[in-house]
Amino acid sequence: MFEIEVVLSPALLHLAEVKNRNVVVIDILRATSTICTAIHEGAIAVRAVESIDEAIILKNHGYVIAGERNGHKIEGFDMGNSPFECMKGALTNKKLALTTTNGTKCITAAMTAGASNVIAGSFLNIDATCEWLKTDGRPVVVLCAGWKDKVNLEDSLYAGALAKKLLNNEPNALDCDSTHMVLDLYEKAASNIGEYLVKSSHYQRLSHLHHQEDMEYCLSENIFTTVVGQKNVEMLKIN
Amino acid sequence: MFEIEVVLSPALLHLAEVKNRNVVVIDILRATSTICTAIHEGAIAVRAVESIDEAIILKNHGYVIAGERNGHKIEGFDMGNSPFECMKGALTNKKLALTTTNGTKCITAAMTAGASNVIAGSFLNIDATCEWLKTDGRPVVVLCAGWKDKVNLEDSLYAGALAKKLLNNEPNALDCDSTHMVLDLYEKAASNIGEYLVKSSHYQRLSHLHHQEDMEYCLSENIFTTVVGQKNVEMLKIN
Repeated sequence: MFEIEVVLSPALLHLAEVKNRNVVVIDILRATSTICTAIHEGAIAVRAVESIDEAIILKNHGYVIAGERNGHKIEGFDMGNSPFECMKGALTNKKLALTTTNGTKCITAAMTAGASNVIAGSFLNIDATCEWLKTDGRPVVVLCAGWKDKVNLEDSLYAGALAKKLLNNEPNALDCDSTHMVLDLYEKAASNIGEYLVKSSHYQRLSHLHHQEDMEYCLSENIFTTVVGQKNVEMLKIN
Repeated sequence: MFEIEVVLSPALLHLAEVKNRNVVVIDILRATSTICTAIHEGAIAVRAVESIDEAIILKNHGYVIAGERNGHKIEGFDMGNSPFECMKGALTNKKLALTTTNGTKCITAAMTAGASNVIAGSFLNIDATCEWLKTDGRPVVVLCAGWKDKVNLEDSLYAGALAKKLLNNEPNALDCDSTHMVLDLYEKAASNIGEYLVKSSHYQRLSHLHHQEDMEYCLSENIFTTVVGQKNVEMLKIN
């Protein structure tokens, strides 16, 4: 059986065995969905950075810089955190530096903890990512970015969807209660994830900021087959 | 609507607003179920202590001492962590000091964080506890003890059961994704919690230690109406 552990918040990452494992970082709304879209749309690489200052330094090295804090675009940045801004050739043959409230710091944390590979998780390429993980064969840690370390529904749901696919419906032999939890949550929500998430705190937050279109897009499954993972300091196409 | 926040692990407690709120600490298998049973069975008070040494000092002050580490009774202690050891007059008019792997440290943490009241949660008295919380009226934080800071199913399920009762089936106005999560988990498991928990890691752990009878008892609902909360350094009957 595939070995899988779900970490519901970055504040719980220290409890997981990360070394020599593949870590899938999830910030469905919207960082990791945006990273996957950027690479699929032709960006050479995405660099996830923690601070606004780091991004500004990279702008001076030719990067397009994108980012948000609390859902708002950062002043002076080229882009916010919407996947649609990555489309229509905006990033073709360019490098993107991205800094967000929750997702980008998880990528750094997983690398620092000694993961073999850090993968950007999204519904947009979930089947391709699942196949890549199965072929690689290492145990998988699914790290939910959450909201400022609080557990959230949308990242937990993706964790459940990925776990279900990785486990081929064999959950009962699992020794990870968080994984059981997200599998059951996903089962409850699977028929209409968009509708299920209307009650979630981040859906409410983004709705107030008029990001409905982004949310609908980020919940679409298997729009492309590009798999995105970290190599050295950048995220690239790895399949 | 009743204000409620579920904290799925002690490692996430710092993210919750605790001051001037009532905190329900949950270690269903078995610490908080044992504490409630001890008080219901006539113990004057239960003192939750973090270390084995603290318990031994209290023994010299007349306390019966009970405790486990990793599910095993501590050598030299009067009792382990089984609720059945508290019955048949074993604690009548006595004081009990209890130290366990997960539950007792949460009681201390919630007190330190400035909770108005710290309540021991159990299925055994869930309706009485719910009524007490409603009458008091303060916002409620439900703190799951988990297993060594990892999220677990049984404490999450109790959180869902209590949230459902406190909210009178009005969950959609909630601004706490963890609460939504445990409500849905409880809905899935409610018809047979014992069967649902067979897959959980702690059920498996306690089964290997032959604690099935304890688990069945700890999942029984509303065996008594005694509500148990912390006053100064001890847990007492508060209703």
